[in-house]
Amino acid sequence: MRIIVDAYGGDNAPDAVLLGCRMAADRWKCEIILTGDEQKLRQRAAELSVSLEGISIADAPDVIPVEAEPTSILKQYQQSSMARGLQMLANGEGEAFVSAGSTGALVVGGTLIVKRLKGVKRPAIGTVIPCRGGCFLLLDSGANHDCRPEMLRQFGLMGSVYMKRIIGVPNPRVGLVNIGTEETKGTELQVQAYQLMKEAGYNFIGNVEAREVPLGGCDVAVCDGFTGNILLKTMEGLATLFMGELKAIFMKSLPNKLAAAAVKKDIKGLKNQFDSAEYGGALLLGSRSPVIKAHGSSDAKAFYNAIRQAISCCENNIIGEIESQLVAQTEEN
Amino acid sequence: MRIIVDAYGGDNAPDAVLLGCRMAADRWKCEIILTGDEQKLRQRAAELSVSLEGISIADAPDVIPVEAEPTSILKQYQQSSMARGLQMLANGEGEAFVSAGSTGALVVGGTLIVKRLKGVKRPAIGTVIPCRGGCFLLLDSGANHDCRPEMLRQFGLMGSVYMKRIIGVPNPRVGLVNIGTEETKGTELQVQAYQLMKEAGYNFIGNVEAREVPLGGCDVAVCDGFTGNILLKTMEGLATLFMGELKAIFMKSLPNKLAAAAVKKDIKGLKNQFDSAEYGGALLLGSRSPVIKAHGSSDAKAFYNAIRQAISCCENNIIGEIESQLVAQTEEN
Repeated sequence: MRIIVDAYGGDNAPDAVLLGCRMAADRWKCEIILTGDEQKLRQRAAELSVSLEGISIADAPDVIPVEAEPTSILKQYQQSSMARGLQMLANGEGEAFVSAGSTGALVVGGTLIVKRLKGVKRPAIGTVIPCRGGCFLLLDSGANHDCRPEMLRQFGLMGSVYMKRIIGVPNPRVGLVNIGTEETKGTELQVQAYQLMKEAGYNFIGNVEAREVPLGGCDVAVCDGFTGNILLKTMEGLATLFMGELKAIFMKSLPNKLAAAAVKKDIKGLKNQFDSAEYGGALLLGSRSPVIKAHGSSDAKAFYNAIRQAISCCENNIIGEIESQLVAQTEEN
Repeated sequence: MRIIVDAYGGDNAPDAVLLGCRMAADRWKCEIILTGDEQKLRQRAAELSVSLEGISIADAPDVIPVEAEPTSILKQYQQSSMARGLQMLANGEGEAFVSAGSTGALVVGGTLIVKRLKGVKRPAIGTVIPCRGGCFLLLDSGANHDCRPEMLRQFGLMGSVYMKRIIGVPNPRVGLVNIGTEETKGTELQVQAYQLMKEAGYNFIGNVEAREVPLGGCDVAVCDGFTGNILLKTMEGLATLFMGELKAIFMKSLPNKLAAAAVKKDIKGLKNQFDSAEYGGALLLGSRSPVIKAHGSSDAKAFYNAIRQAISCCENNIIGEIESQLVAQTEEN
């Protein structure tokens, strides 16, 4: 299996990418293709003493900046490490692509270079997030700010396939993120989406309030990309605040420091539970081949996990399953 | 000062209301007027041994259910404890009103019975929420799902007055909750609101990502009511999850239990920091007299705090200040 990885995406590129790819190549004996400036990458790998055995490099002289217009990946930055990777994926020169670069550019490139599966209205970013008792998939978590009701219906289908195939939840509970549980709650978008999702053929459990989402209220949390971003980032911010306050408590006095020593391992476990690196990346659901968006602040371990996720998507044929379910649904209607 | 309190709003009514009002009447020597079924209230007060000294009762035979259509407060439920309280406030028979009942009904009643200040497009619910280093005001946190850009501009003004007058922040930083910091981020609503808020005359600091909100990124977080509900409820859910996980860690083993004993007081402090009861209620900003929405699950202490907040709104003339700033802004334009 060949996984293409953008060597120049994310805050810690290319060092974290090189280290993460090395770990992944050692662990799974997969073939890794890095995209980026070949000369610089070879030099940096040598400086870090990272062997490139099993890792090849596809030269791409340019890097797309995070603040660039997303559509610039199609023109101005078509020589960038991200664009090159997406083109290779589209050409079948690899089975999946991982990048920690600009989300917007990756969505545009995933949609227009890799292209959508037949019948997919808009791809969505699905992010696996820890919650009480496990994890849930949030989608869309940032690809489409404005959504139509039929897009949300489709997000539910794609998310359901992901949770079943990748996470192993037998009959994923699909919830519509809303401000109340009654059918009539929310804006026009939620009211209409509710009616479509009721008939969508997956396990739709109705509206789920944001309060219930971190408490494990559903396995697939469906919303527009604006709402998804708000939900995801609020969780990130509060988790950071909480761990900071906890640390301050444990550093406050000698008795507290001794107490900290006793529970250190468990608190570390709690921290890891809410650490985005633990869950790998987010998947662009609806593209023709797996495109994984790693967190911008990804370290080596996060890249390693994102590559694991890419392999898992391929092995479990997530794209094929989404495609056949979409076909089944189209035939029904 | 006369504070009107809905005796039959919230999950713990009327017991928590009676107890909270007793505490408030003792502490501040304010006059409290309870609305609700007089006979039942007197009986329950006697059963709880709660003295009604300084507390009068305005009889209202009915109660508006949480699930009722919000507009039913104007017709079907105009004999309810909430409607009666709002009518008394409108008639000047009290200076402020507190209720833990249906948010929707309270917004409709606050808007159409108490009425809006001249120039106010739509009242917003402002909720004071703990964050790193203090607290911030989130508005709208649920009154208006759909908002126009000029409504958000006005929310910023009202929120700024609140944080200055009630919380004592000298020059409140008003942020627009968004999915990125650049001016062009978000949906049409945020893009247009940004331009209006830039010229609004208060301390607008631009877009604030949801991640930064719990970390103290602004003093006033402005958004539509749908987004505000998502942000607020996500924080509630995650805080509940965290405290639960922490409790589980501290109960796990004997060494952990001993550790817990050492930090118990500090952890309690952390819990209180994220406990909605600590911050009293939410204010309906834009109505002609202060209308306070207490949390549906309010206990006696929460009612006590909500009454304190009502008194503070009156003493600091929050309504007059919003009114004069609205007039100043209208004259400018």
